Amino acid sequence: MNSKKILLRSRPQGMPNESNFEFTEQEVSSPAEGEVLLKALYISVDPYMRGRMSETKSYVPPYKLHEPISGGVVAEVVESRHSKYKSGDNVLGNLPWATYTLSDGNGLHKINPNLAPLSYHLGILGMPGLTAYCGLLFIGEPKQGETVVVSGAAGAVGMVVGQIAKLKGCRVVGIAGSDEKISYLKEQLGFDEGINYKTTSNMQEALEKACPEGVDIYFDNVGGEISDAVYTLLNNFSRIIICGQIALYNVTSRPTGPRVEPLLLTKKSLMKGFIVSDYAERFEEASKELATWVKAGNLKYEESIAEGFDKLPEAFLGLFKGENIGKQLVKVAE
Amino acid sequence: MNSKKILLRSRPQGMPNESNFEFTEQEVSSPAEGEVLLKALYISVDPYMRGRMSETKSYVPPYKLHEPISGGVVAEVVESRHSKYKSGDNVLGNLPWATYTLSDGNGLHKINPNLAPLSYHLGILGMPGLTAYCGLLFIGEPKQGETVVVSGAAGAVGMVVGQIAKLKGCRVVGIAGSDEKISYLKEQLGFDEGINYKTTSNMQEALEKACPEGVDIYFDNVGGEISDAVYTLLNNFSRIIICGQIALYNVTSRPTGPRVEPLLLTKKSLMKGFIVSDYAERFEEASKELATWVKAGNLKYEESIAEGFDKLPEAFLGLFKGENIGKQLVKVAE
Repeated sequence: MNSKKILLRSRPQGMPNESNFEFTEQEVSSPAEGEVLLKALYISVDPYMRGRMSETKSYVPPYKLHEPISGGVVAEVVESRHSKYKSGDNVLGNLPWATYTLSDGNGLHKINPNLAPLSYHLGILGMPGLTAYCGLLFIGEPKQGETVVVSGAAGAVGMVVGQIAKLKGCRVVGIAGSDEKISYLKEQLGFDEGINYKTTSNMQEALEKACPEGVDIYFDNVGGEISDAVYTLLNNFSRIIICGQIALYNVTSRPTGPRVEPLLLTKKSLMKGFIVSDYAERFEEASKELATWVKAGNLKYEESIAEGFDKLPEAFLGLFKGENIGKQLVKVAE
Repeated sequence: MNSKKILLRSRPQGMPNESNFEFTEQEVSSPAEGEVLLKALYISVDPYMRGRMSETKSYVPPYKLHEPISGGVVAEVVESRHSKYKSGDNVLGNLPWATYTLSDGNGLHKINPNLAPLSYHLGILGMPGLTAYCGLLFIGEPKQGETVVVSGAAGAVGMVVGQIAKLKGCRVVGIAGSDEKISYLKEQLGFDEGINYKTTSNMQEALEKACPEGVDIYFDNVGGEISDAVYTLLNNFSRIIICGQIALYNVTSRPTGPRVEPLLLTKKSLMKGFIVSDYAERFEEASKELATWVKAGNLKYEESIAEGFDKLPEAFLGLFKGENIGKQLVKVAE
């Protein structure tokens, strides 16, 4: 059987583009003893993958040149010689960008198709949902009545952060890049205020208006000048959760800006970077509560689904143009 | 009775100087019912006071123009009409820079002259010692075998931080501004390594050599470029304790530098500003342990004592020239 694959052809300098990807097709053999043959159903594209395209060491190792890009994939077992899986099972794993893949089962998790739509395991019940949950609750520790600002608010993580903050009784202000997104956040997800950073000439003024009692928690997916504006409104004992820095992923020199240390000192504030796996011990409790909220309709969820394996590079590149509302996925097969 | 006083004549622009201070002499009446008359014995000068000389709101309110500077003072009760105090008692309080002062007892604490030299209550058993203890242990949470870097290492806070880190089994590297200080840290206080930032042309290289296993905790009293060099060596899950930013206190524009957020993200690290009063609930436990260590000789302590009330401005200004080893005090009377 043949499998389509997407390899890293070259490492991007600055903003990545289509030429960094290489399509190929390879024969996939039948599974050997202890292996399963997987058919990709949904493939996730996430901002953190940009880091892995560079050679720089980061918290996840770089992709290798001329080898497949990899990431979160929901797949179906089509042939199994592995005792734990049978044909027809649905699984979640960190897998190559390929239509078919052999796996020894390492790192695969069976998922229950009755719990929620399969694709949800790449989003609200998967890495982005857990990221929102763990970052906001374990670092931010939101208290009733506090003001929470979320940047990248209409992204896969941001939309969950804002909704959990609302469930905790906070005032929630989202920053996003289009009026459509802002309307969605306010009208569908219950955010108190939204700021379109692309059309707002004075972010600080807009934030002051949206946060009359200052900012207690800033959940940052973006970094750069948007953050600088938020920092000016920090309250005493505020918490800044550094989850992503998408505004800085594609810069080629070390970014500079106003120093935050004097501010953290005078405001006695905390700033903490994390990745979701830091909280692996608490995933079970987190997943359970997220699933409960989703089922009860307390947590709404939006996906942007591109159709077709060939759309993967385009869908990934779109993340940096601020095009997607909610979790960006590519549907590869039924 | 006449009392000498030092008032804030003008607010400094950038580095303060003698002209910002005004000497005066005023009559002090006898204590009314409920009051005590205090004679200053030791007056503390501390870097944080620079912030109070500016009009900008900070975590402590600004000094008022043409009113006395104030801060930590060890005094003797010379006359009492307050039920809690009698003549001859020694007290610690936040008091004006004055040779004699009336007080209603508010904020005064009796101190025991047999526990340690009186002046220690302005240092290792007082605010700087508690600052070191609370910041290092409650934010830094040092673990055996970790590497701790302290900037401003020969200052009142830094020297205690380094020694406590040694007691906790850490490798300790101090950054200070003279060879004399470095020798003191290594030979007297047991620091593993010391770096004289004034004579080191490549701080990053020097730090790499001193910290072969990277940096787990950075206790920062200084800020600015020294910190930038330390940041390049941060390990995963490192903790940066922002205690002071003396390098930035006298700058007149908002300081800029390399952004720390991407680093905090990839290193999953924490940065936290604090002032010691944030941990007031834990002062009793902290004071007790500090006193035990001092008595047992596990915590050495150094003071720079200037003699005479008139030396206060000079002693304060010296803090920003990096002149003092250990806690800078002024002895006002026997």
